[in-house]
Amino acid sequence: MKSIDYILANKQRFLDELFDLLRIPSVSADSKFDSDVRRAAEFIKEKFESAGVDKAEICETKGHPVVYAEKHVGDHLPTVLVYGHYDVQPADPYELWDSPPFEPVIKNDKIYARGACDDKGQMYMHVKAFEAMMANDELPCNVKFMIEGEEEVGSENLGEFVKANKEKLKADVIVISDTGIISNDCPSMTVGLRGLSYLEVEVVGPNRDLHSGMYGGAVGNPINTLCDMISSLIDDKGHITIPGFYDKVLELTTVEREAMAKAPFDLEEYKKELDIADVKGEDGFSTLERIGIRPTLDVNGIWGGYTGEGAKTVLPSKAYAKISTRLVPNQNSDEITALVKNHIESIAPAHVKVKVTPHHGGEAAVIPTDSDGFRAASKAFVQAWGKEPIPMRDGGSIPIVALFQDVLELDSVMLGFGLDEDAIHSPNESYGVFNYMKGIETITWFYKYFAEK
Amino acid sequence: MKSIDYILANKQRFLDELFDLLRIPSVSADSKFDSDVRRAAEFIKEKFESAGVDKAEICETKGHPVVYAEKHVGDHLPTVLVYGHYDVQPADPYELWDSPPFEPVIKNDKIYARGACDDKGQMYMHVKAFEAMMANDELPCNVKFMIEGEEEVGSENLGEFVKANKEKLKADVIVISDTGIISNDCPSMTVGLRGLSYLEVEVVGPNRDLHSGMYGGAVGNPINTLCDMISSLIDDKGHITIPGFYDKVLELTTVEREAMAKAPFDLEEYKKELDIADVKGEDGFSTLERIGIRPTLDVNGIWGGYTGEGAKTVLPSKAYAKISTRLVPNQNSDEITALVKNHIESIAPAHVKVKVTPHHGGEAAVIPTDSDGFRAASKAFVQAWGKEPIPMRDGGSIPIVALFQDVLELDSVMLGFGLDEDAIHSPNESYGVFNYMKGIETITWFYKYFAEK
Repeated sequence: MKSIDYILANKQRFLDELFDLLRIPSVSADSKFDSDVRRAAEFIKEKFESAGVDKAEICETKGHPVVYAEKHVGDHLPTVLVYGHYDVQPADPYELWDSPPFEPVIKNDKIYARGACDDKGQMYMHVKAFEAMMANDELPCNVKFMIEGEEEVGSENLGEFVKANKEKLKADVIVISDTGIISNDCPSMTVGLRGLSYLEVEVVGPNRDLHSGMYGGAVGNPINTLCDMISSLIDDKGHITIPGFYDKVLELTTVEREAMAKAPFDLEEYKKELDIADVKGEDGFSTLERIGIRPTLDVNGIWGGYTGEGAKTVLPSKAYAKISTRLVPNQNSDEITALVKNHIESIAPAHVKVKVTPHHGGEAAVIPTDSDGFRAASKAFVQAWGKEPIPMRDGGSIPIVALFQDVLELDSVMLGFGLDEDAIHSPNESYGVFNYMKGIETITWFYKYFAEK
Repeated sequence: MKSIDYILANKQRFLDELFDLLRIPSVSADSKFDSDVRRAAEFIKEKFESAGVDKAEICETKGHPVVYAEKHVGDHLPTVLVYGHYDVQPADPYELWDSPPFEPVIKNDKIYARGACDDKGQMYMHVKAFEAMMANDELPCNVKFMIEGEEEVGSENLGEFVKANKEKLKADVIVISDTGIISNDCPSMTVGLRGLSYLEVEVVGPNRDLHSGMYGGAVGNPINTLCDMISSLIDDKGHITIPGFYDKVLELTTVEREAMAKAPFDLEEYKKELDIADVKGEDGFSTLERIGIRPTLDVNGIWGGYTGEGAKTVLPSKAYAKISTRLVPNQNSDEITALVKNHIESIAPAHVKVKVTPHHGGEAAVIPTDSDGFRAASKAFVQAWGKEPIPMRDGGSIPIVALFQDVLELDSVMLGFGLDEDAIHSPNESYGVFNYMKGIETITWFYKYFAEK
């Protein structure tokens, strides 16, 4: 295809444009970045326009806007709906970044910046693949783009947007590039995603910070109590103790588990790369199973009392924690959120007041491997990477996949090209230049094969 | 005594001078206040000089300096050694203060400022009592002042100073005003103090913050693990589980406990004042016993992961806690520090690295009630307050009391006038104007009665 030559010929410009986007700190979780989030939306809209869409628009929501764009090339051609997001995770702790998170740089052929992979880099591949096909008159499908700005805060308003625009979003397949592959030697495609339930816990003891000498031992310490409560949520077998938590978890068959076990995985390499002496998880499951098919509970943040330099002998008034659970297919996010909230409130001892505030959630999803979209994606990988992609269950969450299945009755094709080493959500997030360019190629091939289906 | 009239006549100036001292943010725990700590030392030195000491000097230590001053009035007169400190606790959380911590104000006859009570207000009473007696030619004893700047960080260098200056510090009694009374209607004197052991715990998991979806459930979470470890330190009976922790604790006799139980204490009032539904502590002991005669363990601060606005699905690399224990007589601070450090390190699971760093400690002390100093102090209370003070065991720590017993072979008289409501170490620390003035009077009477012994 001429489009492929075009992509290779325009590599530097494709990188420069991504860098411009990465320089916009579109952190959706923190309101002080609201104007930057808006700027990122406008940036995307302009790029769609210059790439040749029929129309591009910024659609307002109760929160951050959705960028929608479409190109119609033929009534009888299939329609591809592309989903992505232009918002990013908070960048802190800033001090752990080797270079500023919003000043992208290339080192060892990797782009370093917040959002380099998740999801600006991967989302922008679609804009450039579209441009390439348009410029070479090779776009074989109608295409619609829905790029949101709230993925990192749970896509709070996307559901409403999708429900309100069912007709507008009508398509034959949804393509999402927001996942990863096992390695560049071993491409894979995500066929399962975990759901999410996220809550914030506030534990209040005495009505003011107290002197730990004058009151210690007689007045309950909210930090100790919060630790007791958190500790009680997981038993010594790595099992979550919240009543009903596992009730709806689908157990995989031995056959399915054996199939999963075939995925290449080197535990020693894994531990070495993370610099840990041992892994930890639920008894009776392998590391890949713990990530792919089992629900989990993690404390994402905790704070209380004196955290400055030196020593302060305070018995604090309050302690806080952010707690999230990852859910597997058939667990319902709202149900689990209610279970966790009620359980934590129910185990609060009399000497404290406990308040649990749900943040956001999302449903897990399983993606069929026998769809036209999945087959076209596989062919695209074979064409671009010379290898058949391995079906993988990812531990992450892309709540809207379940939403699309539910509202649009469409399965998503997870055409992601990230690597574990990209450290998304972490300091020094990166995305390989190779993966960025190869991703644009693969997407272009996908359109070709999907049109031929 | 003329001195008493003088004190009453100079009330406003005595308050103004204290306010000048309170405006200096002499936070010893935080190095960014080092120059302020120094300023506070110089302020004290000047006030001693203008009050008429023979000499006042700033004695350097490895840390913050000690202000020493003395007045010799007669070879055959007894000598009083006054100890106090001019450093203060950190003021944060600043947002919880109704008025800025270092801009003292008087509201409802109380002085509000960090250090108002602990210990600038109480220490400065001695400077003014001395001035009053000098001005009226009524100083009946030789007096030496040792005012340090590291009490809030464990008096790290005072031990060396005292050992190096045994001759210089020779005295017949030590007087310290850094404790409280039950209430203004029920004056009391501290006859027991708890020791302190303070450590900082660092828990390190993976070598970087991870995406809680991609790794959650398979990689140990340092926050969850820290909570597990902290939770395991105290059992459901409020008993500390660290092996050997209680080995040297002196159990009080039934008679002693019955005597303690006579101190006026209203549990309902106590809970109401702190706005807690219930107290919490070691089974089998009353609230006063839990504070006065039992050792405790409290988490003074905890932090890790994402603590900003909104939600971040991170599995953090590190988590931290500041943990302190209050010790009772016969427990050795260094021994307990080693016990706690070794225990916490020993229970660290294989999936994390745990580092425990001791901050500072101090020994507990019991003060005899049959000494000349204690009797003189009791008389001074009767004279100034019209009531005999009740002997009380305080839960706080003034490590140097044990140090003085050990090195100078002198018992301390705890001539403190603070109230629980003063909220020392907390936001909105205060000190009653009545207590400040009445304290200066009481100290003045103490000198008279001690000279007559």
